[in-house]
Amino acid sequence: MTRAGYRPSHELVPLVLSGSRLAIARMISRAEGGYAEASEALAELYKHTGKAHIVGITGVPGAGKSTLVAALIKSLTQGGRKVGVVAVDPSSPFSGGAILGDRVRMNDAAEANQAFVRSMATRGHLGGLAPATLQAVDILDAAGYSPIIIETVGVGQDEVEIVSAAHTIVVLSPPGLGDDIQAIKAGILEIADIHVVSKADKPEAGAAVAALKGMLALGPARSGSTWASPVVAVSSVSGEQMDKLTATIDKHWKHLHESGELAARQRNNSRTRIFNTARHLFQQQFDERADDLERQLQAVVNRETDPQSAAHALLGWNQERSQREI
Amino acid sequence: MTRAGYRPSHELVPLVLSGSRLAIARMISRAEGGYAEASEALAELYKHTGKAHIVGITGVPGAGKSTLVAALIKSLTQGGRKVGVVAVDPSSPFSGGAILGDRVRMNDAAEANQAFVRSMATRGHLGGLAPATLQAVDILDAAGYSPIIIETVGVGQDEVEIVSAAHTIVVLSPPGLGDDIQAIKAGILEIADIHVVSKADKPEAGAAVAALKGMLALGPARSGSTWASPVVAVSSVSGEQMDKLTATIDKHWKHLHESGELAARQRNNSRTRIFNTARHLFQQQFDERADDLERQLQAVVNRETDPQSAAHALLGWNQERSQREI
Repeated sequence: MTRAGYRPSHELVPLVLSGSRLAIARMISRAEGGYAEASEALAELYKHTGKAHIVGITGVPGAGKSTLVAALIKSLTQGGRKVGVVAVDPSSPFSGGAILGDRVRMNDAAEANQAFVRSMATRGHLGGLAPATLQAVDILDAAGYSPIIIETVGVGQDEVEIVSAAHTIVVLSPPGLGDDIQAIKAGILEIADIHVVSKADKPEAGAAVAALKGMLALGPARSGSTWASPVVAVSSVSGEQMDKLTATIDKHWKHLHESGELAARQRNNSRTRIFNTARHLFQQQFDERADDLERQLQAVVNRETDPQSAAHALLGWNQERSQREI
Repeated sequence: MTRAGYRPSHELVPLVLSGSRLAIARMISRAEGGYAEASEALAELYKHTGKAHIVGITGVPGAGKSTLVAALIKSLTQGGRKVGVVAVDPSSPFSGGAILGDRVRMNDAAEANQAFVRSMATRGHLGGLAPATLQAVDILDAAGYSPIIIETVGVGQDEVEIVSAAHTIVVLSPPGLGDDIQAIKAGILEIADIHVVSKADKPEAGAAVAALKGMLALGPARSGSTWASPVVAVSSVSGEQMDKLTATIDKHWKHLHESGELAARQRNNSRTRIFNTARHLFQQQFDERADDLERQLQAVVNRETDPQSAAHALLGWNQERSQREI
């Protein structure tokens, strides 16, 4: 069943590949909505992915992520790159329904044309926020955007799951880090490929840089990697510092290629993504089948069935399939 | 396919119902092993459950759980009851392969005859430790045992999941509780229907009782319940104190019946059990299908399929089924 005037997703595929902004926006909406009709088109688009450098930017609320992303967009588009941004931070000005960067101050038409900014609704994703967000990244990748920046707030399982899918993970810490153990608690510091201390013009910034460097000197290197995570201080007012950060992000991408770490990282990211997608589908199964669950529950309470059979029925699995043969 | 000499599970059902210790032990082993052949028999036995009072006993390692359980077995069997014990605490003398209470000092033949003690292997359960443990409880319930005591160490998701399936949750705290915040960290204090302070002969026991009473006075009552969790001090050397604990456990069971809280609790426990069983089955699917996962992963890395389709394939689901129609 299709709505009148609804353009079938498979017709959007060549338009997305040719870079049509409208087609990209539509495909992302369909991924976000979890439409069955779009799944073949998304699978088709996935074949054209794997070219983009995916950069995750995360940090505690108030670290200055949105300001950093806006400065990065400017720095990167000036260099002539087509920058994609997918924001899933509910506190971000890019989020809350702001589509196509209408709330980002685009300095000129060229910049607006070369950047595609999309915020994801942070609720109501059938099949999970993280899988839909990564599909949005796929669409931009297939459309030729690179780098693609994923901006998420660094707290919560969904957010960590999303940013972990990036090739390069940038963790942003505000000055005064010592007072705020949230980042350490959330475990996001240890996944950083690049540490950024924001608001470098503030006097506390130097102490934050020193604290991070001290922590990095003590901790073990990321497993299987020869990359030593650098600490970069930035102020959103300084274009020079932003160019240094851009260069560091590029350097990490180059490192992944030259060291051969890229293949292992992509493989690991894909494994995590498949598992998480399945986990979200499993959760969704339960959320969607509230009536079935109530029916099965009543049958268990009445002793008409047992919990094992009820669980199998809810998963739509054949009981025998997942049990060991004697 | 059955092994030569293997007695089919359905033939064990009437033997379990008549109380055969050998049949009970065999059925529990089959639940533990996750044999497909046993699932119908387990479902059949489940119909005969719902009579037993299930008592969960938990507490931090070193609290004295095993000593308490041994004293409870003695107190309860002297009162003429058929006591079932399922221990899933890896540090328990009942566990680690001790079958049929051979490591419990049974004082006389009558006691040994009236108690059925079974430890569960804490590893290698196909489909999860918790679901298998609760099936063992079902088997004892169907065989006419009551109360059935589940002993678990109160740390770890599995353990909390298991003890939460009880009607009456006893949380055991050692004296010197103030020094040990493990119980509070694990969140098990708040699920207690009865608090027990062990080693009441020690001078610090009084302070532990006072600390618990203070905490209970401050905290909210368990949602939807009019039961005020009492604090009982016991020493394993005192039969008098053990009788008081037994009476308190019985009083809680009576309260659940008379207040009407039993139905809501059983319903809630069943809902949790179904969900957790499904979650374990989901996890097992991945553990068992390592080869399929590798194949799907390689296909995703090669862009022959996409992560969404791979997740669906691994779950054995039809992709369309779990996506929204437009």
